[in-house]
Amino acid sequence: MATLVLGGARSGKTRYALMRAEALAAVTDGRLTMIATAEAFDDEMRARIRRHQDERSAAWTTREAPHDLATALGALTPGQIAVVDCLTLWLSNTMAAGRDVEAEIAALCDAVAACPCPLLLVSNEVGWGIVPDNALARAFRDHAGRLHQRLAAQIDEAVLIVAGLPLTIKPSNF
Amino acid sequence: MATLVLGGARSGKTRYALMRAEALAAVTDGRLTMIATAEAFDDEMRARIRRHQDERSAAWTTREAPHDLATALGALTPGQIAVVDCLTLWLSNTMAAGRDVEAEIAALCDAVAACPCPLLLVSNEVGWGIVPDNALARAFRDHAGRLHQRLAAQIDEAVLIVAGLPLTIKPSNF
Amino acid sequence: MATLVLGGARSGKTRYALMRAEALAAVTDGRLTMIATAEAFDDEMRARIRRHQDERSAAWTTREAPHDLATALGALTPGQIAVVDCLTLWLSNTMAAGRDVEAEIAALCDAVAACPCPLLLVSNEVGWGIVPDNALARAFRDHAGRLHQRLAAQIDEAVLIVAGLPLTIKPSNF
Repeated sequence: MATLVLGGARSGKTRYALMRAEALAAVTDGRLTMIATAEAFDDEMRARIRRHQDERSAAWTTREAPHDLATALGALTPGQIAVVDCLTLWLSNTMAAGRDVEAEIAALCDAVAACPCPLLLVSNEVGWGIVPDNALARAFRDHAGRLHQRLAAQIDEAVLIVAGLPLTIKPSNF
Repeated sequence: MATLVLGGARSGKTRYALMRAEALAAVTDGRLTMIATAEAFDDEMRARIRRHQDERSAAWTTREAPHDLATALGALTPGQIAVVDCLTLWLSNTMAAGRDVEAEIAALCDAVAACPCPLLLVSNEVGWGIVPDNALARAFRDHAGRLHQRLAAQIDEAVLIVAGLPLTIKPSNF
Repeated sequence: MATLVLGGARSGKTRYALMRAEALAAVTDGRLTMIATAEAFDDEMRARIRRHQDERSAAWTTREAPHDLATALGALTPGQIAVVDCLTLWLSNTMAAGRDVEAEIAALCDAVAACPCPLLLVSNEVGWGIVPDNALARAFRDHAGRLHQRLAAQIDEAVLIVAGLPLTIKPSNF
């Protein structure tokens, strides 16, 4: 079972995904795993990562996967419950590394489909503003939009978080 | 019957509108008409237009109306099913041409109201980011927001597309 | 009873809040009060303020509170029905004045909780675009996002306005 958790900046997406994972762990005794895609390349990002770590209880194990997200998903086992935070940072890292974005997105979607445990995928909505001036930002939001469409079509459930509250955009069958 | 299809960049708005139009054509035997508002003024836009054309089957007839959208709507006949893609590009063209935007919006809304065939109007949400630095971008998002409000009040149905999935914001009576 | 009215630029948030307040006033005989947070520091803002004033009927009393919003809420009495327009402008004023934003937000949330009359709080969604280049804009959208989360958790009802139409994100118990 995979859930896509979308929302704007500081909308409470991560908190919602953690809460959902912890609620599931409480009834299934699953092991909580955070797959973090952030790279701490400056002080602002370091502070953000630390704040997110502080929000998680000691029950969580963290694995960092700023680039090889499909590999990290492939290493998950049935007893785990995983949160990926977040897809847009992974996409940004993938573009910055000069990788073949379409191929990486395809590999990610395959890894999500093959994942043997519950998965919550957090990602930022970034395409609701004025068209950006620079071509890289336009390419980024195009890739992000297509990634979200593709994942939303294949997964079990999708929610849009607004002010910490979930709007269901694809209801779960579970 | 007119439907407003809103959404962010690369949210799957166009694909959703095409799918709805094709589903309707299958039961009514209507002729599918794309009213395209894009102008191919650079390579990026040419590539985008070509990609959108490739997504459409041979069943579609395309009419270009980067400026005279109300006229193009006025030429529609009862046997057609039309998709306008998209209103925000038309608005941008209208502003760039130095036309009277309020008058053009009023004429467009009148043409939508008078349209004798099913109509799907695709448009971008552009006002959910930080206030833009430049006055033209602020004027653009103000006009777009007011256009959406006005059309949403008068038409039969409105949906917001997120990750390819529709959220109903005004349910159809049909 | 407090309602959070969120939405993008020119989405019809203010109009919706006014309509809700006026509908409530019609059945309760409450006195309509606008708490305006805008400061008229340039012509564009002056025009915007004037347009918003023109939209309100003579039944409204206006109080300006660009900075001391908690104080303005504290002065409300049970017979009133108040609209705050808007929280994001207040936040912007608070940041520009160099105040302690976290402390101001806490005081505001306390004042909302203690408010003795129906309250409609209008605020802009600003975090759905590309990450802004400048640190101040990033801080602004972080503060706005956290303010919305905090208020949404504590209040009775929250709606997201799209093209003038409300999507319920937290249903009212009233």
